[in-house]
Amino acid sequence: MSQQKPSIPKGTRDFSPEVVRKRNYILTTIRNTFEKFGFRPLETPTMENLSVLMGKYGDEGDQLIFKVLNSGDYLGKVKTELANTSSQKLTPQISEKGLRYDLTVPFARYVVMNRNQISFPFKRYQMQPVWRADRPQKGRYREFMQCDADVVGTTSLICEAEMLLMMNEILQNLGIEGYQININSRKILTGLANYVGHQGEEALLCVAIDKLDKIGTQGVFKELAHLGYTPEQLKSLAPVLKLSGSNNEKIAQLQSLISNNETTQGLEEIKQILSYVTTMQGQLDTVLFDPALARGLSYYTGAIFEIKMLDGSIGSISGGGRYDNLTGVFGMPDVSGVGFSLGIDRIYDVMEARKLFPDAVNSSTQVLITNFGKNEEAYALAQLAQLRAAGIAAEYYPAPAKLKKQMSYANNLNIPFVALIGSNEVTDKTLTIKEMDSGNQSTITTETFIQKLKN
Amino acid sequence: MSQQKPSIPKGTRDFSPEVVRKRNYILTTIRNTFEKFGFRPLETPTMENLSVLMGKYGDEGDQLIFKVLNSGDYLGKVKTELANTSSQKLTPQISEKGLRYDLTVPFARYVVMNRNQISFPFKRYQMQPVWRADRPQKGRYREFMQCDADVVGTTSLICEAEMLLMMNEILQNLGIEGYQININSRKILTGLANYVGHQGEEALLCVAIDKLDKIGTQGVFKELAHLGYTPEQLKSLAPVLKLSGSNNEKIAQLQSLISNNETTQGLEEIKQILSYVTTMQGQLDTVLFDPALARGLSYYTGAIFEIKMLDGSIGSISGGGRYDNLTGVFGMPDVSGVGFSLGIDRIYDVMEARKLFPDAVNSSTQVLITNFGKNEEAYALAQLAQLRAAGIAAEYYPAPAKLKKQMSYANNLNIPFVALIGSNEVTDKTLTIKEMDSGNQSTITTETFIQKLKN
Repeated sequence: MSQQKPSIPKGTRDFSPEVVRKRNYILTTIRNTFEKFGFRPLETPTMENLSVLMGKYGDEGDQLIFKVLNSGDYLGKVKTELANTSSQKLTPQISEKGLRYDLTVPFARYVVMNRNQISFPFKRYQMQPVWRADRPQKGRYREFMQCDADVVGTTSLICEAEMLLMMNEILQNLGIEGYQININSRKILTGLANYVGHQGEEALLCVAIDKLDKIGTQGVFKELAHLGYTPEQLKSLAPVLKLSGSNNEKIAQLQSLISNNETTQGLEEIKQILSYVTTMQGQLDTVLFDPALARGLSYYTGAIFEIKMLDGSIGSISGGGRYDNLTGVFGMPDVSGVGFSLGIDRIYDVMEARKLFPDAVNSSTQVLITNFGKNEEAYALAQLAQLRAAGIAAEYYPAPAKLKKQMSYANNLNIPFVALIGSNEVTDKTLTIKEMDSGNQSTITTETFIQKLKN
Repeated sequence: MSQQKPSIPKGTRDFSPEVVRKRNYILTTIRNTFEKFGFRPLETPTMENLSVLMGKYGDEGDQLIFKVLNSGDYLGKVKTELANTSSQKLTPQISEKGLRYDLTVPFARYVVMNRNQISFPFKRYQMQPVWRADRPQKGRYREFMQCDADVVGTTSLICEAEMLLMMNEILQNLGIEGYQININSRKILTGLANYVGHQGEEALLCVAIDKLDKIGTQGVFKELAHLGYTPEQLKSLAPVLKLSGSNNEKIAQLQSLISNNETTQGLEEIKQILSYVTTMQGQLDTVLFDPALARGLSYYTGAIFEIKMLDGSIGSISGGGRYDNLTGVFGMPDVSGVGFSLGIDRIYDVMEARKLFPDAVNSSTQVLITNFGKNEEAYALAQLAQLRAAGIAAEYYPAPAKLKKQMSYANNLNIPFVALIGSNEVTDKTLTIKEMDSGNQSTITTETFIQKLKN
């Protein structure tokens, strides 16, 4: 084995102790909220059969799936002439498995495989990494954590309302302010396309109005004109993009503008969902009806939602909606559900930028006992054991290094208290406690110190 | 997309909510103990460069690493004639990354890459899945969780003692009884090989005495005879395999039998480690000196240890030891450390067989509110919100299904209380609470119910 300078694959990350702790703080907060709402954890394997993954994420997705080489003599089973083959033709012959690309397809696969054991409605959450062979760039990784919650097996709009409440509560519990949760309905977008005379073309319409924030009404109109929208059609669209006021006011305005079936049905659903939210939580000014919200049109069939930071510092940190055919591709039709996904990396970035992580997250060890050498060792170890027996995370510096080195260890690791044990402390059966923040020192017994920490 | 019957790759597992909760209970218990001892979490990427992984686990290990196909047109860069190549020759040309095979090599790689940022001694723990392309069989998976704790950057024997205490405390906190933690030293095994006249051949000696439990002294002697051990050599070995009594008695017996340097040094270290354990925790009858314990000889240089269940139901559930050259292969010599690894799957099996998981692990939702229809809905949702605001995990059945179906949902999900809300409860502003265990019913206010649950 030759020596080598090690590296990690591009787009992947090591998470240092400080970062793991902060990420776990986010994940635990989310997990607790999910559990309070009756959601149950699921975990699926890192590798899925390629037959399960391929064809589910479009052609580009198929490219971005990390494929795992078959083990053993994988070429032995290859039937084509290698000389005349291409990567694309060879891959299915030498690779049967791929890395998890999202949490939705594995969830659908799990539901189909376990349909007879699952008690529906199935409220599941899943927090696991996924992998995409995308070009890495700032904020985009090839390995990243996804965090999904879904209810499947019911069409009740109460579930949509619960999703909104969960999103809201998670952000509150994380201490994140200045966000808004936008809600719209695929049905309203369908109705809107009809209304402006472009029936069945809501996808193109949505691509344009999705840019409203960035390019303004005139920019949107310019794009639509390129798509063949007449001045009259643009004129009919204008008031929809200008709706204002409370949610109820916007709903009423849209109702008076557009009366086709899809729009009416979509608005009824939005009204019902918002009414459920109010029944459970009172008026929530973070939840806003936004008829220009457009996302996941190839997939969602009912309500759609998304969380945005008001300061525009970052894209959406969460999104989701109602779908009607989760498991059809695996031969189990008509499974309706509603779910959302949280972007852990973006939430982390927001919390880091705003210094929202509690101080306690940065440290677990409460006390470092200094090592002054053999004479103090037995007494020091006994005090260490006593602290730990009281449930206090404590360490003994394992060698009698220079005090400066030991103090800087405590400092680097954010350990709030250092217990100095020299010959006086051994004789007097005490500890000299240095508070690292203030620099204050006091000499007390271990019992008194434990009581102090416990209060 | 054609319909297909989905499956998962062999040797991998879905973890249902019940199983995830039990596994998380184990992992959280371990994590809490690690943190109490001052260990800090690390996470490394699922994929490592093959240059980091290959050559670190022996020839067989190289075979068992799951290799990830390069993305894009991986054949375009292949330089050999495909027609004349082999899987072995082609692999490094079409695959640069592999899945994490253990937690030690990524840890070593991390230490080298971050040597200037790390405060040594570095006490890290890591709990992440690893992948091996091994033939799957009962209890052996291709994806499984590893759980390691290591201290690197110090040779202090206090660390060995802390490892033993952590192992012991983790099992105690999990409620597992009937185990023993065996400790030995590589130095004692080296000294023993010298003593029986087979200097430098401790590996072969160890393979044989490692089977002592299974095949007895006569079986071991037979194997060694095949290896060329003379009757005199076997005779000199016999008393070592028969040591009995307390740890101190066994150490004294071995000392009087063998006086070479390696043995003496190994015994001194064992004595010191056990003395540290006693100073911190009193006499621990779960920690036993076992001069026949042999493991990881290609790697460990000092103390070695292992946890065994006394009922012999299962192999070792944990093992570890002192090593002296963790990072040499990455160009950073002389990093000494000591660590151990816990087998989560085996611990899970022991706890499941002995029914050691607390009941609370099986359920998070405390209350299911039944859905009797539109008339009761608003009141029911308000009670749901009130329960959750009090921190109680609660659900509302999302549709007015038959009561029997709703009750069986609560039953299947181990929800301990069902709150029945019909027209009487709405009028009286009460809940009728059914305790699922006893079948008892009582009609009380939501406030009273919350108080009851909080006590």
